[in-house]
Amino acid sequence: MMRLYDLAGRDPEHRFSPYCWRVRLALAHKGIPVECIPWRFAEKAAIAASGQGKVPVLVDGDTIVFDSMQIADYLEAKFPERPSLFGGAAAQALTTFMTCWADQVLAPALVPCVVADIVRHLDPGDVAYFRESREARFGRSLEAVSADRETRLPALRQLLAPLHATLSRQDYLGGTAPLHADYAVFGMFQWVRMVSAFEVLEPGDPIHAWRERLLDAFDGMARRAPCYA
Amino acid sequence: MMRLYDLAGRDPEHRFSPYCWRVRLALAHKGIPVECIPWRFAEKAAIAASGQGKVPVLVDGDTIVFDSMQIADYLEAKFPERPSLFGGAAAQALTTFMTCWADQVLAPALVPCVVADIVRHLDPGDVAYFRESREARFGRSLEAVSADRETRLPALRQLLAPLHATLSRQDYLGGTAPLHADYAVFGMFQWVRMVSAFEVLEPGDPIHAWRERLLDAFDGMARRAPCYA
Repeated sequence: MMRLYDLAGRDPEHRFSPYCWRVRLALAHKGIPVECIPWRFAEKAAIAASGQGKVPVLVDGDTIVFDSMQIADYLEAKFPERPSLFGGAAAQALTTFMTCWADQVLAPALVPCVVADIVRHLDPGDVAYFRESREARFGRSLEAVSADRETRLPALRQLLAPLHATLSRQDYLGGTAPLHADYAVFGMFQWVRMVSAFEVLEPGDPIHAWRERLLDAFDGMARRAPCYA
Repeated sequence: MMRLYDLAGRDPEHRFSPYCWRVRLALAHKGIPVECIPWRFAEKAAIAASGQGKVPVLVDGDTIVFDSMQIADYLEAKFPERPSLFGGAAAQALTTFMTCWADQVLAPALVPCVVADIVRHLDPGDVAYFRESREARFGRSLEAVSADRETRLPALRQLLAPLHATLSRQDYLGGTAPLHADYAVFGMFQWVRMVSAFEVLEPGDPIHAWRERLLDAFDGMARRAPCYA
């Protein structure tokens, strides 16, 4: 069975990494069982064979693949007869933009809203590393970064405008059924709801309705995960 | 022959609308000849049959289609045997997001940079309408809006980060060849270079190299248009 190194918190069943969620949903989409191995930031040695220090890392026999986008490409190439993650070469190329948008626009806007909540869920061995590295990046305490998060909502909603407009027209980014582009963006919202009671989406927002549909996907796989919402 | 109502400036051959460029490139992609009819904001009566007041408006016999996204969908459905504008249903769905991103993120960031330049290119009959409607929106003179445009570049480049990252990995948003998603975004950059000497892309930027490739597409159709760059 394939093995996936998956970020775990203080509770080993609390697996909130947005990037790992992308891979877990991609594996479910392909119908491929996987053994998820809890991993903490301090356990660099466990994934050293990947040549880098972040999860997700997928181990498939002698093959080791890291980075959620590379893992999705790997699964698509290895299992072409299973339901496609992309829906063709053009859609696979466009999924690059969706993933970059989630990573470079959505994540930086969400992190300040929940970073102080993340610390409370980390394994004790990860807390000092996480706090020091992130506080160095922000130049102040994580609690100070998250304190004014209500005031960040208007700017966040402005960044979400193209997602809002798209999901007003269609049920999924991929059209009538979810594809990897949906999982790439959904992972970010799943991460937020697993670490924080802070709600960034309003009921009635088409993004909220889309998130609900993805929470129900694969027999409620994402909905069953421990969360606040 | 199909007819396209295409925004024209003081010089009737100066056709700079980003939304009309999308359609002209989509028609070239499909290899469909079109008669482009110069249109000005004041000429609402000429397109009244479309039931709204903006170009592009495509007239195909008894069929009238408006909105660049609807026109692309119409061309794809009408000419399925011609080169696809999307590359499949999933990519067509993802192109919705790309178009919404261009309209709702890129355009609002570019408009303040060039709005004062646009006025100088408009047909005399359009100047008062354009200036008054836009100055009401911004709450100050168009020259004041554009005056500090150099200071807008860092924020603009931040918004372009996902486009930059994607085009660092692949030649086109659509992958190895351009698709409607490329035209949807490129139209915005073509519009800027046709109305203003203000350069928003640096040489060496992968977005700049991509823009060069699209300027060369279809025998240099976009490069031949009157512009500043």
